[in-house]
Amino acid sequence: MPDQLLDGLTSDPLAMGWMQGLPPRADKRIDASLGNHMRFPYTRWSFSNLREFRPTVRVSRGEGPATPLPVALRDDLDALPVVFADGSRLSLAETHPLNFTDAFLVLHKGAIVYERYFGVTRPETRHIAFSVTKSFYGTIAEMLIAEGRLDPATTVASHIPELASSGYAEATVRQVLDMTTAIDYSEVYDDARSGIGEFSLALALTPRPADYAGPGDMYAYLPTLNADGAHGAAFTYRTINTEVLGWIVSRIEGKRAHEVLSERIWRPLGTEADADMLVDPAGTPFTGGGLNPTLRDMARFGEAVRNDGRIGEAQLLPAEPFRAIKAGAAGADATRSPHPTLADLVYRSQWWFFANGRPVYSARGVHGQAIYVDPEAEMVIARFASHPTAANVAFDPQSLPVYRALGDYLSKG
Amino acid sequence: MPDQLLDGLTSDPLAMGWMQGLPPRADKRIDASLGNHMRFPYTRWSFSNLREFRPTVRVSRGEGPATPLPVALRDDLDALPVVFADGSRLSLAETHPLNFTDAFLVLHKGAIVYERYFGVTRPETRHIAFSVTKSFYGTIAEMLIAEGRLDPATTVASHIPELASSGYAEATVRQVLDMTTAIDYSEVYDDARSGIGEFSLALALTPRPADYAGPGDMYAYLPTLNADGAHGAAFTYRTINTEVLGWIVSRIEGKRAHEVLSERIWRPLGTEADADMLVDPAGTPFTGGGLNPTLRDMARFGEAVRNDGRIGEAQLLPAEPFRAIKAGAAGADATRSPHPTLADLVYRSQWWFFANGRPVYSARGVHGQAIYVDPEAEMVIARFASHPTAANVAFDPQSLPVYRALGDYLSKG
Repeated sequence: MPDQLLDGLTSDPLAMGWMQGLPPRADKRIDASLGNHMRFPYTRWSFSNLREFRPTVRVSRGEGPATPLPVALRDDLDALPVVFADGSRLSLAETHPLNFTDAFLVLHKGAIVYERYFGVTRPETRHIAFSVTKSFYGTIAEMLIAEGRLDPATTVASHIPELASSGYAEATVRQVLDMTTAIDYSEVYDDARSGIGEFSLALALTPRPADYAGPGDMYAYLPTLNADGAHGAAFTYRTINTEVLGWIVSRIEGKRAHEVLSERIWRPLGTEADADMLVDPAGTPFTGGGLNPTLRDMARFGEAVRNDGRIGEAQLLPAEPFRAIKAGAAGADATRSPHPTLADLVYRSQWWFFANGRPVYSARGVHGQAIYVDPEAEMVIARFASHPTAANVAFDPQSLPVYRALGDYLSKG
Repeated sequence: MPDQLLDGLTSDPLAMGWMQGLPPRADKRIDASLGNHMRFPYTRWSFSNLREFRPTVRVSRGEGPATPLPVALRDDLDALPVVFADGSRLSLAETHPLNFTDAFLVLHKGAIVYERYFGVTRPETRHIAFSVTKSFYGTIAEMLIAEGRLDPATTVASHIPELASSGYAEATVRQVLDMTTAIDYSEVYDDARSGIGEFSLALALTPRPADYAGPGDMYAYLPTLNADGAHGAAFTYRTINTEVLGWIVSRIEGKRAHEVLSERIWRPLGTEADADMLVDPAGTPFTGGGLNPTLRDMARFGEAVRNDGRIGEAQLLPAEPFRAIKAGAAGADATRSPHPTLADLVYRSQWWFFANGRPVYSARGVHGQAIYVDPEAEMVIARFASHPTAANVAFDPQSLPVYRALGDYLSKG
């Protein structure tokens, strides 16, 4: 399969015929035992259907009505010009295949002004959000802090004795939240020998070699990690921080992480669909990247964050945690971190604050998943994608101008 | 684990502590790679949570309102005496642990008169229905027959060329529906060398040995089956018939089996919850036993069958297929089959018609799953269970008197 020749149009999963046929022909089949469910171009189908390949749990929305999202579609947006750094120009509609976008939704002043589904996605599709998941758990941790049930100055070991002999022992909850821990672990995607590669094997997210003798699950893996320098010195993005955070949150609440997410956000927010969440072989939900929500529910969360817990007039989530995250990002204890694509970056409580023309913030997941909030433009974007490259830095130059152009345009009225 | 010493009370999954702890202790863990998710007493937890252990697809209920089930609870039923063949007597409430019942619901004249959840089950629990699944697909096949899109006299090979060299080639659709095919395959549970054992390995329902070299999925397995005698001579219960039936239905509809179930039953019936469905490594839903619905949705289907497609005044499903199934069971072409526990048995279109005091019919799954319809009593029972023994014949003597006592009592008013 000449993957590198496929672009966002030619890799369309319907055109490729993935999983079509009863049964699908061998060359149209996606199979977790082969691991191709995590490889482009198969991902253009599998990222919308991960529960077919891996064990999952259900994040329940409960029984209540969904919080309505008003619809005020604007037909002018598809033609909106997007200008890139090299001066080239595309319409918004033309940027979607460029970014391997699977689904794209824009809220302006709380109303859906733009909503598109491509390939095999539909409004009810549960698409992997990857590290967008982290921002949900960072928010929950801030809820516990606001309630006085979690002190960010306490150490990891004081909450999780199992980590008392690991490199995490003396790291504080704040350092975990802001990813300023110093751990001997590298987040180099597509390298099985990197930290994230070992982590994926421990979680069985990628197929294990027959002679695999490493840790059998996440909570067997985390205690094996060693420190690598002094905690608190610098921001370094590591998914394992969020697994430690998920462990702390789960232990304080006395519930499994997906149950906490249901009670803290999914039910009170009035989501419209249960979400799927990937679990490891011990049944531990993958808080660093395992959430599979619908696009609209991801947008609902973005809108609630923008409005400090409100959607429309309804205060669905407590305001204080959102105020604390935003104040923390703007405050004296926030350290701006150099970043190849994000200007003026502050990473705070599992959220990315940066400048894209205006000050914005975002939840970001590999392969292009995003919640993007532009407060001045009163705009929230939710995007699913299946970009062939994992790291967002590889395609931020093609994505950030899209978000900025929408914010520029909508902020004018 | 001295499984044989555990009864329906001492095997309570909450008391056993399965999957409690963050993470669960090794001896409290259920892990698909060990296969204990399919072994008693772990099953008392895992049968309510199978999506955590295996890949699944979602049977969508769509967006519409659920069909209401009126509630008219009767407090007298827990004390209802149930008399067994040996003259012993228990109250209805006492029969639940005897039968390892996980959840139990009784509809009388369309209203919920009794509803109980035990162990880890709740109204929203998706519990494995095992072969109750078959009756859904038998009904769908009858829908296609009523529409003239499936001729029961045609051969399997005429629909599925992949089976033209198998023992199924010349079997008719009617023989498949009524399980009168003659195939060299034995349904002896708990024996990995039996047909059902090979089948489970092909579907990866049970962990494969490291040196497994058998078929990789269901549609690779079914063509390997040979005939064993003349089709049409006798009823022999074989799950593979329903896999062949699911293949035929899927091919006629041009859709995957869970999509067909959604469109044909789950959406029009007004179910209240999406269901989970187990899939094999090629993504093929397990139509012989992979459905995980809620108890109330299973009861809704039972009520619709009782009323030829109606719930209350609403004709939600077409009447003709249900009339055809019932007429077929009563008709000249129905062959009564000797059965160790079911009197006057006729197996018709994946439904069990028999006498339990009065004429009744039932959908039956291993380990005690059941939809039980007593037309004269205007009663429908839905039951989930996790009995240590797979075969219903082992505990029919403890279960059928329960159903009969309820029918006797409710038919009096």
